[in-house]
Amino acid sequence: MQNPLILLTNDDGYDAPGIKALEKVATLFGDVVKIAPDKPQSGMGHAITINSTLRIAKRESRDGFIGYQCTGTPVDCVKIGLDKILDRKPDLIVSGINHGSNASINVIYSGTMSAAVEGKIEGTPAIGFSLLDHSIDADFEAAQEYAKKIIEMALSKLEDKFCLNVNIPKAKSEFIRGIKYCRQAQAKWVEEFDKRQDPSGQDYYWLTGHFEAYDHHQEDTDLWALENGFVSVVPIQYDMTDHQYLDRMKEWSS
Amino acid sequence: MQNPLILLTNDDGYDAPGIKALEKVATLFGDVVKIAPDKPQSGMGHAITINSTLRIAKRESRDGFIGYQCTGTPVDCVKIGLDKILDRKPDLIVSGINHGSNASINVIYSGTMSAAVEGKIEGTPAIGFSLLDHSIDADFEAAQEYAKKIIEMALSKLEDKFCLNVNIPKAKSEFIRGIKYCRQAQAKWVEEFDKRQDPSGQDYYWLTGHFEAYDHHQEDTDLWALENGFVSVVPIQYDMTDHQYLDRMKEWSS
Repeated sequence: MQNPLILLTNDDGYDAPGIKALEKVATLFGDVVKIAPDKPQSGMGHAITINSTLRIAKRESRDGFIGYQCTGTPVDCVKIGLDKILDRKPDLIVSGINHGSNASINVIYSGTMSAAVEGKIEGTPAIGFSLLDHSIDADFEAAQEYAKKIIEMALSKLEDKFCLNVNIPKAKSEFIRGIKYCRQAQAKWVEEFDKRQDPSGQDYYWLTGHFEAYDHHQEDTDLWALENGFVSVVPIQYDMTDHQYLDRMKEWSS
Repeated sequence: MQNPLILLTNDDGYDAPGIKALEKVATLFGDVVKIAPDKPQSGMGHAITINSTLRIAKRESRDGFIGYQCTGTPVDCVKIGLDKILDRKPDLIVSGINHGSNASINVIYSGTMSAAVEGKIEGTPAIGFSLLDHSIDADFEAAQEYAKKIIEMALSKLEDKFCLNVNIPKAKSEFIRGIKYCRQAQAKWVEEFDKRQDPSGQDYYWLTGHFEAYDHHQEDTDLWALENGFVSVVPIQYDMTDHQYLDRMKEWSS
């Protein structure tokens, strides 16, 4: 039997510490091909490159590990990986480990998670991993431990074609209380653009804001899990239809 | 009573014919503020600008219509519009009219629709309009007629905080059979990257592909509606949780 083929990607860029941490875990389970953006692509959501071109650069690390840098978005990396780089369909896509949370509404903006969602769209099971620590020097040890557990379980369920959004609290492993399977909490970012002036007196803006959560006190949400020391695992789908409201639209005329 | 305040945006850029067509319709119903990307942003999905800055340029057309060009993505336009440009919360966001389909899986990649989804996240009802014609010289007359009908209905349902994905077939108005409220059809794009060489002999790639639909023969899908001459209206939500699979995850260990 062939080793599982695992496509590894992220949105923080090819050389981010988080993807190196995930590479170490993924290589325990199969043949890993890393195809990642050549620069940070956080917040790129499900963006794809249609009005310009893509390039790929082959990289080889000192220990002989082969990977590919792509000039595009995380979703581009998955698309071009499946079509042009891999010689067979991967068994699993792993994305991350993201530096920062992709829980709750963050899933919508996340390049890490969009790469995983693209996997599911293409019929390949996928898992996005995120650690609740933005620091470039974040400690990925506990995240690696749980990534290992989850990938091991996932490899026995591949026929389910799942997509998972895994978030890991910023804590030492001994303080993490286990894994919770949960739903996306309701929340939003409240924008507070920071207005500044450039040296020539022209205005420009930085996106900043604060996070406003609505139902994080409910024990079935990912935010509750994370706030209470659990690793949150949310299974993801991409049917954007509001089926409940669709029923109510019969009131609208046609 | 104040006129409804309508935020107008798109992903084809501030000067695209489609947004001008929608502007003409929207101004029939309220005070319209146009805040749109300064360049094409098709395929940007739910991308936001977090690692660089945004700028806004005020524009005034010959007939005195005021608008704002933003250097960011469609979602950025909505965010900065709500926080920095509008002096009150808009009653409705309209996005488009997009040049090309956003039916089925396209909703995930679409900047036009992501701007509308951002509206809903922020608690503002929103409608994205798309015409199934990529041409810069597309005829928007039938699309405008249906946009007018739908905005008129929508303004009487604002308390529902809906988000609608409206797609209009490429056809003269007399050949359009009406409006169908439907669900997102299952489909995907199959990538076929076009590999070329630049003048210095280096490879580069263009994203191309073909659309593969799975359940478009089912009469409750948006693709069925469009293929059968109807305007499709899909109500949109942004809970990415796969609730069905979440139930089944009890089999997974924790």
